[in-house]
Amino acid sequence: MSLPVRNAIRQITGYAPGEQPQDSGWVKLNTNENPYSPSPHVVDAIRKAASSQLNVYPDGMATPFRRAAAELFNVDPDWILPANGSDENLTIIVRTACDPGQLIAYPYPSYILYETLAHIQDCQVKRLALNDSFAWSLDDAAQLRKRARVFFVPNPNSPTGNVWPADLLLDLLPDDGLLVLDEAYADFMNTPHRGELLHDKRFDQRLVITRTLSKSYSLAGIRFGFSIAHPDLTAQMLKAKDSYNCDAVSIAAATAAIQDQDWMLSNRAKILATRNRLAGQLIPLGFTAYDSEANFIWTQHESGQHQRIYEELKMRRVLVRYIQFPEAGHDGGVLEGLRITVGTDAEIDRLLDALKECINNL
Amino acid sequence: MSLPVRNAIRQITGYAPGEQPQDSGWVKLNTNENPYSPSPHVVDAIRKAASSQLNVYPDGMATPFRRAAAELFNVDPDWILPANGSDENLTIIVRTACDPGQLIAYPYPSYILYETLAHIQDCQVKRLALNDSFAWSLDDAAQLRKRARVFFVPNPNSPTGNVWPADLLLDLLPDDGLLVLDEAYADFMNTPHRGELLHDKRFDQRLVITRTLSKSYSLAGIRFGFSIAHPDLTAQMLKAKDSYNCDAVSIAAATAAIQDQDWMLSNRAKILATRNRLAGQLIPLGFTAYDSEANFIWTQHESGQHQRIYEELKMRRVLVRYIQFPEAGHDGGVLEGLRITVGTDAEIDRLLDALKECINNL
Repeated sequence: MSLPVRNAIRQITGYAPGEQPQDSGWVKLNTNENPYSPSPHVVDAIRKAASSQLNVYPDGMATPFRRAAAELFNVDPDWILPANGSDENLTIIVRTACDPGQLIAYPYPSYILYETLAHIQDCQVKRLALNDSFAWSLDDAAQLRKRARVFFVPNPNSPTGNVWPADLLLDLLPDDGLLVLDEAYADFMNTPHRGELLHDKRFDQRLVITRTLSKSYSLAGIRFGFSIAHPDLTAQMLKAKDSYNCDAVSIAAATAAIQDQDWMLSNRAKILATRNRLAGQLIPLGFTAYDSEANFIWTQHESGQHQRIYEELKMRRVLVRYIQFPEAGHDGGVLEGLRITVGTDAEIDRLLDALKECINNL
Repeated sequence: MSLPVRNAIRQITGYAPGEQPQDSGWVKLNTNENPYSPSPHVVDAIRKAASSQLNVYPDGMATPFRRAAAELFNVDPDWILPANGSDENLTIIVRTACDPGQLIAYPYPSYILYETLAHIQDCQVKRLALNDSFAWSLDDAAQLRKRARVFFVPNPNSPTGNVWPADLLLDLLPDDGLLVLDEAYADFMNTPHRGELLHDKRFDQRLVITRTLSKSYSLAGIRFGFSIAHPDLTAQMLKAKDSYNCDAVSIAAATAAIQDQDWMLSNRAKILATRNRLAGQLIPLGFTAYDSEANFIWTQHESGQHQRIYEELKMRRVLVRYIQFPEAGHDGGVLEGLRITVGTDAEIDRLLDALKECINNL
């Protein structure tokens, strides 16, 4: 007999994250990890937690983290919902707001996981087409905001690192739904912010901001994210999370990380400097370098041979992300290119050397 | 305007786990934690992980853990699905198997979380009534197995610690659905097993076993569980999990824990000895002591004043679980009693002293 599995699950292939080689020796510039170590206070906190009472359940509300994040964003702790990675925040949002059949919208090209989350919940998905300047048509936006229950908007966006300002984001606030700003990369913006939009009356308490410690805080390995939203909405979202969704060790690590702003900002400054250098050095090699406010650069080569360049780099143990977006752009064609994470200067030097070899061999 | 929240979420209150006092000095016998520390190898593994590359994403499949668990249960690794606590396994199972409106069944009284999970997914819930001997009627079981998409069965059950044998469990295998044996307490059974039922043809690949490291491995604080099921089913469930649902530190901790069977078994032996002692000493105080194969005892006092006893104990900084099950038993009345976790001998001595005081004051 056939397995009792929902059609919604049977029909999807599942989200495929970037390659994670388990052996060493790679220059890994494919999943937007931070090349620098987390704060030494994080390491201390984990070591201390190792000897704490791991036999008892953790604080289900991650109270110390909630307080620290609330202070940083100038809200009360009941605005903060900690999660096992901000991907879990996105799942919680979908399960809180969207019944099957309702519409989830997102700008395209951007983060394809939104589509997977919609499929799992058996929701409709509509893409808001971005043109070559990564802007949308007002008509398209107006159509979608009428029907969307959740509008996911990564800001800065991936793969380009472009940022949409508040006035444009208002175009995407659903009439009867949530606008979710996925701010995984917000700490790398040229002018970082601390969620001031949450207090902008025009967004009418239907705004959710998600943040992660994976990128700017160098903690992809510990899985910690959080959302910031009006307490009434956060109270509803809490019902859709597991009672103990964050463990004692990662709560300690995340709290220590967010309390060491100097460490994060110092790494951020290094990454922004390297980002500028990388952008400048890509151009003479025949690449474009999209003006990014994240820790990666979206680039296309005049040869158009992106897959080949990706493979040639991989042979040299340099991993970048080769991405194809079907049905993209104003002409509905395939948009393809390379998304390169901003690593250390030494890593970017190795990348540039390898790129030069690749280009010469094309 | 009203918040865009699903009715399914709006209508529930959310699962309320047992109290977790954050101050010290408590004898905490209310959430079935293991009173003993995890293996020293776990502590070492966490310390080592603290200095590993926490800036990169963890192994999304928790491969070392999968291999270790597979070896223990004598299956291939593709039978194992690691999760952020076995509660996450339960969520993944519901999202894989159950469309809204479909039926989730479970024996009652047992673990109320199953009902919350059903509500979040907008599923129907039906309880299989247990009689005073915690057995069910064959007619009731036959009705439910016809329609259930998932039948959750905690085995050993909570709050009683009773175990149902395989022949009885077959009564609950849905005609077109999954039988999920929630074996959170299975290591405390008088005769532990290693998932042999998974290879019993009568269960027709529609059996899922869930296990947790929270109880027998003393790791409630790190959140780690896993399911064991046929690879075809596991492959479908993988689509419903977050890509990186387990973090690098907890993967290291869980792998070290499951590889140190001697440590777990030694703590198990202590807990079983204390369980017998506790049961024997409850009787002369006018309590029943249900014959438990888990790390807790379900007890009722001849006075019937369970809430008062719970409160009197709490005043003495001894926490037990006072539980009321409405509409329970053959008469549909309220079943109430105390569920007492088996702590250390010293903790149980403090409990017994406090109980004697309480009883004298009734």
